[in-house]
Amino acid sequence: MSDRPPVTAAVVIIGNEILSGRTRDTNVAFLAVELDAIGVRLREVRVVPDVEADIVRAVNECRARYDHVFTTGGIGPTHDDITAASVAKAFDVKLVRHPEAAARLQAHYGAEQLNEARLRMANTPAGATLIDNPVSVAPGFRIGNVYVLAGVPSIMQAMFAGLKHGLAGGPPMLSRTIGAFLAEGAIAAGLSALQDRYARLEIGSYPFFRQGKFGTSLVLRGTESAAVEAAAAELRALIRSLGGEPLEDDGAQV
Amino acid sequence: MSDRPPVTAAVVIIGNEILSGRTRDTNVAFLAVELDAIGVRLREVRVVPDVEADIVRAVNECRARYDHVFTTGGIGPTHDDITAASVAKAFDVKLVRHPEAAARLQAHYGAEQLNEARLRMANTPAGATLIDNPVSVAPGFRIGNVYVLAGVPSIMQAMFAGLKHGLAGGPPMLSRTIGAFLAEGAIAAGLSALQDRYARLEIGSYPFFRQGKFGTSLVLRGTESAAVEAAAAELRALIRSLGGEPLEDDGAQV
Repeated sequence: MSDRPPVTAAVVIIGNEILSGRTRDTNVAFLAVELDAIGVRLREVRVVPDVEADIVRAVNECRARYDHVFTTGGIGPTHDDITAASVAKAFDVKLVRHPEAAARLQAHYGAEQLNEARLRMANTPAGATLIDNPVSVAPGFRIGNVYVLAGVPSIMQAMFAGLKHGLAGGPPMLSRTIGAFLAEGAIAAGLSALQDRYARLEIGSYPFFRQGKFGTSLVLRGTESAAVEAAAAELRALIRSLGGEPLEDDGAQV
Repeated sequence: MSDRPPVTAAVVIIGNEILSGRTRDTNVAFLAVELDAIGVRLREVRVVPDVEADIVRAVNECRARYDHVFTTGGIGPTHDDITAASVAKAFDVKLVRHPEAAARLQAHYGAEQLNEARLRMANTPAGATLIDNPVSVAPGFRIGNVYVLAGVPSIMQAMFAGLKHGLAGGPPMLSRTIGAFLAEGAIAAGLSALQDRYARLEIGSYPFFRQGKFGTSLVLRGTESAAVEAAAAELRALIRSLGGEPLEDDGAQV
């Protein structure tokens, strides 16, 4: 049992397309699950527009507050791709053309196709190190505790796969979901007492409607297997004491 | 042509289930589209855990910065539902039992089913006004420029439908999407020049892969119909000048 504070992360999503409702983000769910598995707790997400001042503020607030920050989006070749310049501004360093990134783009596009717009994708804050892009070459980068990734999910996922082994984490988060056809309001008092007895676990309650009936999914999360299992056993007993039947592992069905 | 600053909004999503990747948020996309239609620009989204200090900070930063703030989640009957108490703290007012909310719950549940956990759903910050919940009775509330809504999408949508006519907005945002089987890097220079000529429009560029080919969706957004249409005409000409064929209204297919 360790009392080290958890290793934390934030995700900053950069893109007008999320704020206009045009695109639904899927990167947060991917990163949340991947980070949990390596013992990094996602503590905050922000979605900001393609506006330099907004990106600078979000990056600076999050990098001061969390161990790791992941940005997604805004690293392509068009005028609305301003993440690299904004992150340089956040760190108060110059935006420079990264020679290795430029060389990769040159090898990929060839001299004829490599126009100035595409070369912009080789611009990084001074002092940044590259994050490989096995899908479409143009790299992401890391500066300090900030990892700048693509917004396209397949590219973001490939970038993250390449960098995650180097991330400092903690014990992985364990999770158990138990459901019951009981209303939240019926189980709330017992659940609150259970949370009091297991203060080191996160116990969440989520209503659902299924097979024409209302029910509740209870999620137990923590890093200590014995505590998660003991609380799960008590939760099953609580559900039975209220006339319900515990449904195991129903998290995916809700 | 008006130079009034746009009416702005933020959404604060409260819930560990989004940060753990267990649930994918769908409320942002709904609110983004609804707000656009009434001339309110969604400028920021934050996702925070069920932790009072984090909720207080997000609500206070957003209500100072934007015209309207919508929170989703954390207003149910269980111990992890701490939104009302946190918003009271953010406004530095007491959490009180709202008599009308308590009366609605009493009428719905009856004396036998109305336990203390369910009565918690009648607690609001002092001075709050109720937001109707036609789906499951337990109301949301408004205090200042902060609207506290349910997290369950069907309930949140019903609550929003009831309140949106009272929201101060501006001219609705108009949007036109034109696609082309051209790489972003090929159209970037022309697009940047177009953005310079139409500084009052938001012009976004989003790569796609479809029918085995790479392409780009270009999105023009603004409140002035004439400017959107003129820019769209210029964009079609730009696409043709690069050997492409404009694809109209392909936003939904990406």
